[in-house]
Amino acid sequence: MTRGRLLGIGVGPGDPELITLKALRLLRSAPVIGHFVARAKADKGQGGNAFGIIEAHLVAEQVRLPLVYPVTTEKLEPPQTYEGVISDFYDTCAVRIAEYLDAGQDVAVICEGDPFFYGSYMYLHDRLAGHYEAEVVPGVCSMLGCVSVLGTPLVYRNQNLSVLSGVLPEAELEERLKQADAAVIMKLGRNFEKVRRVLQTLGLAERAHYVERATMAAQRIVPLADVDPMSSPYFSMIIVPGEKWSA
Amino acid sequence: MTRGRLLGIGVGPGDPELITLKALRLLRSAPVIGHFVARAKADKGQGGNAFGIIEAHLVAEQVRLPLVYPVTTEKLEPPQTYEGVISDFYDTCAVRIAEYLDAGQDVAVICEGDPFFYGSYMYLHDRLAGHYEAEVVPGVCSMLGCVSVLGTPLVYRNQNLSVLSGVLPEAELEERLKQADAAVIMKLGRNFEKVRRVLQTLGLAERAHYVERATMAAQRIVPLADVDPMSSPYFSMIIVPGEKWSA
Repeated sequence: MTRGRLLGIGVGPGDPELITLKALRLLRSAPVIGHFVARAKADKGQGGNAFGIIEAHLVAEQVRLPLVYPVTTEKLEPPQTYEGVISDFYDTCAVRIAEYLDAGQDVAVICEGDPFFYGSYMYLHDRLAGHYEAEVVPGVCSMLGCVSVLGTPLVYRNQNLSVLSGVLPEAELEERLKQADAAVIMKLGRNFEKVRRVLQTLGLAERAHYVERATMAAQRIVPLADVDPMSSPYFSMIIVPGEKWSA
Repeated sequence: MTRGRLLGIGVGPGDPELITLKALRLLRSAPVIGHFVARAKADKGQGGNAFGIIEAHLVAEQVRLPLVYPVTTEKLEPPQTYEGVISDFYDTCAVRIAEYLDAGQDVAVICEGDPFFYGSYMYLHDRLAGHYEAEVVPGVCSMLGCVSVLGTPLVYRNQNLSVLSGVLPEAELEERLKQADAAVIMKLGRNFEKVRRVLQTLGLAERAHYVERATMAAQRIVPLADVDPMSSPYFSMIIVPGEKWSA
């Protein structure tokens, strides 16, 4: 029997119209749709953000395979570590998906944005792509969704772009931002206040833009100074565009 | 009379199926399609790469507006400079597009990849968006097209990504690559040999991947050591993926 294929499908930044023709074709034909979802949402019978983007395109016969994260940001009791718990979780997901693949069914795992750009899919890919045929469909990543709604070019000509995580220590974040021509800062959440402080220190606060849930219905563009650090959601981002090239 | 809208449309990295539903909808309904094209191609009656991606979707009535680059990489006679010539060119393009906008017609300018990620569209946007309604449709960028065909996750978890230009001086390129968790190097062409040397110096050559025309029919994935520096095309890229995160 022919084994199924593993498909990693980027579904774009949030607007359902920002999915590609290829992603849509493969999603419609895959018998099994795997989707990551937080425990809190799953308990309410909801799917994750990526699932919401594509749900309307599915037909009744397709298997919905929820992959429910065991942890998000809560504290764990030692000896449990985030790394240990999440690694076991991905192992379990890989086993469940492999059962469908062994039975000859393709499994499409959907990802907000792009699968290989900070997408959880990559941890399944690393576990399964050596054993099964795997194909990845790239998607519009969230940072490009952000700059499109801001109406701000991100990088001109020969400028360098630094994509940075808000979890970086303050000194390192400052050093990296100082050297960047243009920057995107992801993973804000509880790191927001620190990131804003660094931007102010460097005189970059005026040039920086803050966006929540870009291209989604709940999108908000807020001046950096007005953001409430306690309510900055996971799907938020700061963009420091490159300086306009005068040509 | 209502003025037309300026649309900057990302058409993705090359595979015509990697266009978004939104890009396709707007392209089909825009009365004028602006597309950048090199002189050599235009003289042969050909369109640029982005035009090739979407041509099959157009109908006969739509105006094709070629925007023919006056220079690419050739030497200019002083006092001409690249910056001066290209700036005049964008000024002229903006005037031509504004005529359609003033006449109430939408103009969709297509870009390979994403319009705000090194796309020529941004120079028109900077000239026109202050005077006309403008909308940008983000696209799948070329670097994500590259990693999808390589089957290699680009950045894990909290890794930083540096997008660098091959035109950087050797010492600066080395310094920036040394500090990057993951890197994408664009604008290779005549800079290829220098970039490869730096990767070898840093011990990164083994981890680096070289791709030409990712997701296009003429796609080539070549081991870095085997690339002929004299024949590396503009649409080539080097990817240094982040180290696998073990989770």
